[in-house]
Amino acid sequence: MTQNLSPAQLREDIRSGKWTTPTTGVAQGFVQANLVMLPRDAAFHFLLFCVRNPKPCPILDVLDPGQVEPKIAKGADLRTDLPKYRVFEQGKLKEEVEDVRQLFHNDTVSFLLGCSFSFEAELVAAGVPVRNLEEDKNVSMYITNRDCDPSGPFSAPLVVTMRPMKPKEAVRAIQVTTRFHLTHGAPVHLGSPEELGIKDLGQPDFGDPVTIRPGEIPVFWACGVTSQLAATSASLPLIITHAPGHMFVSDLRDEHLTLL
Amino acid sequence: MTQNLSPAQLREDIRSGKWTTPTTGVAQGFVQANLVMLPRDAAFHFLLFCVRNPKPCPILDVLDPGQVEPKIAKGADLRTDLPKYRVFEQGKLKEEVEDVRQLFHNDTVSFLLGCSFSFEAELVAAGVPVRNLEEDKNVSMYITNRDCDPSGPFSAPLVVTMRPMKPKEAVRAIQVTTRFHLTHGAPVHLGSPEELGIKDLGQPDFGDPVTIRPGEIPVFWACGVTSQLAATSASLPLIITHAPGHMFVSDLRDEHLTLL
Repeated sequence: MTQNLSPAQLREDIRSGKWTTPTTGVAQGFVQANLVMLPRDAAFHFLLFCVRNPKPCPILDVLDPGQVEPKIAKGADLRTDLPKYRVFEQGKLKEEVEDVRQLFHNDTVSFLLGCSFSFEAELVAAGVPVRNLEEDKNVSMYITNRDCDPSGPFSAPLVVTMRPMKPKEAVRAIQVTTRFHLTHGAPVHLGSPEELGIKDLGQPDFGDPVTIRPGEIPVFWACGVTSQLAATSASLPLIITHAPGHMFVSDLRDEHLTLL
Repeated sequence: MTQNLSPAQLREDIRSGKWTTPTTGVAQGFVQANLVMLPRDAAFHFLLFCVRNPKPCPILDVLDPGQVEPKIAKGADLRTDLPKYRVFEQGKLKEEVEDVRQLFHNDTVSFLLGCSFSFEAELVAAGVPVRNLEEDKNVSMYITNRDCDPSGPFSAPLVVTMRPMKPKEAVRAIQVTTRFHLTHGAPVHLGSPEELGIKDLGQPDFGDPVTIRPGEIPVFWACGVTSQLAATSASLPLIITHAPGHMFVSDLRDEHLTLL
């Protein structure tokens, strides 16, 4: 049962090439993270971008230049322990690879940022429907008309995820996710998509459309894809990120994210 | 009535030299902040120190190199709008001054960090005694035996403030301050001072001792003085901080700090 795999065992399977597919639903109850790697020269301004935009870019761990073992995963190696990476040159996608040991340098700084997988499990536990899980789809994501607070060369529009639910369930979802400020926290908006500049909920910019039932309203959370757009906005010589859905799985338990 | 002075008016009075004393109790309801200024070269690692130690060093605002107007105070100038500054060379206190325009350079980066003034007002409003306010003293501060997570050249022991109260009041205080994660959040410890390496509550390392009544326990919060010890631990050519009690007063209202 892959959902019961330990994070350490999963990382070992990924490193040895046994596991090459997305990490969705694996090692349930453990925090999965977005990865961004970039050169030391740009690290201050990217860290500042995350600090200034904590909802889309909640910081779980930032490693010193050249370091590969995060505090939240003992024995892990960020160069090998994700199933798939994306490599960007001058902000353009160059290739997808399964190992970045040849690209990682002494001055590379790695950022691990929270993702919404953690709070989705809590929503389900609280009786809130998570339609993308019910329909076995990727969550719907939209580029909004809101700009993040820029930092140095980094800028991006706010990207959001959307989950449809009844108003009563939205109240409960707000209560539950408020505790998860390290995985995007409370929603950024609910109701009218137009206010975010979204013309058609049926045509997300990333992910899949999901069914919206009568009496349901869309509820919008800040999304980690924002950090990928920000990182690649700067035309740096080299940026490495995880490939969509191929996340880093840490030893941190979801409930630890609620500790203040 | 100085407690009703607007933050903008107070900053104007400070800039013109009319106000030169501590900011305690002034412009009530508005967030006051710790200030640290240091060279661009060290800014990534100091920002990372704050990110890694969010309880003692909660980030309110970080300015781009050479910038002096924070987002949380329109029209302000961080070089002139604090009543007193401390100047450190190679980690040693060199002088206290009322203006740092001559010392501030194009590559100077300013950090504004949350302080406990904000949650003290909320504690009082919630019926929790704040002994240092009752006795018109500085809060008791202690250097603990716990090390912060270091970053590059920056390291420091955790410094805490202590407020004595009954166990029932401690429960309420934990509830209230949990919401204030940008001003140190929930306590780091309660009860036995020995566990933090504190031998005598009557002899704080900074601030004044306060009365502890029968049936009261000490409750400990992370303290912003930690950031000063960290900044001056690095032997940098120049560090500027606020002088104790002479804080930066922002336009942000205390209740805004609870928004997630």
